[in-house]
Amino acid sequence: MARWEGNTRGRLERAALDLFTHQGYDRTTVAQIAQRANLTERSFYRWFTDKREVLFAGDELERCVLSAIEEVPAGTAALPTLIRAFAAVPTVIRPRDFLLERAAVIAANPPLQERELVKLASLAEALVAALERRGCDERTARLATDVGCAVLRSATRQWIADDRADFVELLTSAHADLLAVAATTDR
Amino acid sequence: MARWEGNTRGRLERAALDLFTHQGYDRTTVAQIAQRANLTERSFYRWFTDKREVLFAGDELERCVLSAIEEVPAGTAALPTLIRAFAAVPTVIRPRDFLLERAAVIAANPPLQERELVKLASLAEALVAALERRGCDERTARLATDVGCAVLRSATRQWIADDRADFVELLTSAHADLLAVAATTDR
Repeated sequence: MARWEGNTRGRLERAALDLFTHQGYDRTTVAQIAQRANLTERSFYRWFTDKREVLFAGDELERCVLSAIEEVPAGTAALPTLIRAFAAVPTVIRPRDFLLERAAVIAANPPLQERELVKLASLAEALVAALERRGCDERTARLATDVGCAVLRSATRQWIADDRADFVELLTSAHADLLAVAATTDR
Repeated sequence: MARWEGNTRGRLERAALDLFTHQGYDRTTVAQIAQRANLTERSFYRWFTDKREVLFAGDELERCVLSAIEEVPAGTAALPTLIRAFAAVPTVIRPRDFLLERAAVIAANPPLQERELVKLASLAEALVAALERRGCDERTARLATDVGCAVLRSATRQWIADDRADFVELLTSAHADLLAVAATTDR
């Protein structure tokens, strides 16, 4: 069992995903999730505000990236700041089989799709604010965040296809590919 | 009155926005929106599936961009295809004062924020599919769509700040700025 699956939160995530997959998201209650994880409902609510939140690990990804940004030397440009910080993402990312099963459940349930979009939008807003706190103007912060999130999504997609790959290398090659795509102009 | 405000759909949009702004989104019913627009509830449902949808003009933006993509010559690279197609956006965009009021209502109501994110995600998926139909591989299609949507968002933001600006010029300068941000590498 992976380390994260041994802790309380990981057990709740695993239990929820199993129930969502096998009996459906709509028919699963918080009580059932807690019971399957051998925990109380109270433990559930210590970690997650509601049933939708359990597949999104609260604000773990956001906190991870924001604290990694603080480690990047002042004066680093906007996009390199984000890409360096994204190198910390593997410390919070779930195993590939969990992510694949999770993606299938999300794809099948519009309320979960909406929550995923809200989480990503909230992450993007937090990144824009973090870059602005580092002295970046808003327009550059937004463009760098859009580009950075595209790089992160692309690298994560590759990583789900092959989780033995090195995440930093995936970020680097996604950045190079994005740059090639962005630089194509009309003939 | 702008042309779009004279038609049935425009009247419903205007009426809904007025009610959402002045009495609140939660307290507004479809019946009230229809009444304020001097139309029947049946007319409302001919245009919109529900109350949330009224601020998002159905799939108008998506249809507009997809049909503009079809006009772009085959063989044009992915991102230039999108940017050329986005030049058609001003034909469906609402006036600046409507957009500003609309943005305030959306910002104040999480269900509307979610719907906006869902619409943008659906637009992005449609663009990826359109690029793939033109022979683009999936990875390039996704990167070009992410970059293209970032350019569109940036240009739209500038346009809301000054709607006398030329939208194609805003797209061009947003693309140039994005490229500059994306090309910055670590020292």
